[in-house]
Amino acid sequence: MENLYVIKIGGNIIDDDEKLKSFLQSFASVKAYKILVHGGGKLATKLADKLGIRQQLIDGRRITDVETLKVVTMVYAGYINKNIVAQLQSNNCNAIGLTGADANIIQAHKRIHPSIDYGFVGDVDIINAELLKSFLDNNLSVVVAPITHNKEGQLLNTNADTIAQEIAKAMSSYYNVELIYSFEKSGVLLDANDDTTVIPSINHNYYSELKEEKKIFAGMIPKIDNAFAALNSGVKKVIIGKAEELTNLISHSSGTKITNE
Amino acid sequence: MENLYVIKIGGNIIDDDEKLKSFLQSFASVKAYKILVHGGGKLATKLADKLGIRQQLIDGRRITDVETLKVVTMVYAGYINKNIVAQLQSNNCNAIGLTGADANIIQAHKRIHPSIDYGFVGDVDIINAELLKSFLDNNLSVVVAPITHNKEGQLLNTNADTIAQEIAKAMSSYYNVELIYSFEKSGVLLDANDDTTVIPSINHNYYSELKEEKKIFAGMIPKIDNAFAALNSGVKKVIIGKAEELTNLISHSSGTKITNE
Repeated sequence: MENLYVIKIGGNIIDDDEKLKSFLQSFASVKAYKILVHGGGKLATKLADKLGIRQQLIDGRRITDVETLKVVTMVYAGYINKNIVAQLQSNNCNAIGLTGADANIIQAHKRIHPSIDYGFVGDVDIINAELLKSFLDNNLSVVVAPITHNKEGQLLNTNADTIAQEIAKAMSSYYNVELIYSFEKSGVLLDANDDTTVIPSINHNYYSELKEEKKIFAGMIPKIDNAFAALNSGVKKVIIGKAEELTNLISHSSGTKITNE
Repeated sequence: MENLYVIKIGGNIIDDDEKLKSFLQSFASVKAYKILVHGGGKLATKLADKLGIRQQLIDGRRITDVETLKVVTMVYAGYINKNIVAQLQSNNCNAIGLTGADANIIQAHKRIHPSIDYGFVGDVDIINAELLKSFLDNNLSVVVAPITHNKEGQLLNTNADTIAQEIAKAMSSYYNVELIYSFEKSGVLLDANDDTTVIPSINHNYYSELKEEKKIFAGMIPKIDNAFAALNSGVKKVIIGKAEELTNLISHSSGTKITNE
């Protein structure tokens, strides 16, 4: 099987024009099948502020009322997604920008929760791996915005980390998938404030130790949990590291490798 | 060759939720290859107003400064395009929403004009007919937002009528293309204020007569000029008529047929 890189970039890169430009140049230069999943950054919050739409966050998840859904659809699927695609095109990477509604690539349902109404937030049900493969076969790199749909006409705001993970899992039937979470830190750190304390590799036992000793900071735990879930569903490797070092993340010379071994 | 319908819908339909819903149901029920090109409607103007961005129009074309480009990218490629796609999915029409940057389907250049600076407005250079065909072959209906790019990283605001025409022309190598301009009127009217005065068919000679006698209202002339240009470049039929009557436009039982005969 051939390699497929599923790469998630976080908001901090998207908010920084120069870093984003440089990241997209590195992404374009990866000579393999590749899918980019992007988050939203602060642009949606800024636009909502300007429009007088109040934003509410619970556990880091945006509560998506009908006005907020409009904003994130405009910012994620419109402004961010299309600017990324246009920049990739200028780097001779033939990219296609999609939401989950497009070609029905990601079907989701509105989140059901016993006590919190998250609003128009979607949890992923099905990835259309076959159509995604057909785009890759056509020499297209796919750029996914974190918006899905419920197949009943409703768009849904969906966590980009989860989308990356679900796509990586689903594409494992066709490719050797490496899932790369790239963000502002150099990897999983022993000291959250010291970027030189990257842990090169984490397996299940070591992860249990780190958690027990409270050496992993809170925001990292769902990412690593997701990573192990992905490995248990056919993904070959999960790498967490700095977006600016994408080329090194791919060659495994920087970042943290999450492994089942 | 098989039939392909390239259908443009105007802003008045997009601005009316009920009419849009009904139109999309009709579109979904068309059992043939199909591409939908949508305009922007008043939503972009409304958002620009809310954000305090002043809009300038010259000859009905929006002057697209950098802030206006952001707005139209968000509204056309984000909000409108993705809501259309989600609605088509709910009608069991597997749609994919694209701008010209996506898969490089429409490459354009920034308009050059001796006296007016239109800003980030694009004139179409190349349609990637082969990739569009590959999507249609994959049983996808393509929904095109009126945003293109210059292959150098710049998105460009582009007239949706022109995009529909250029796509129709380019796809004529592969399909019997019918180009349908659907809007709020029942067709080309002898009396602009009387929707019962539809001219069923216009050929070149009759068009010259109508123009000489000033029986065609100004806004119609570029549409008909475009129609003849399309027919001269391989498009089989051009129909102008009411969006609510899409099924009848396709069966040629309503609207105005523009013909070379």
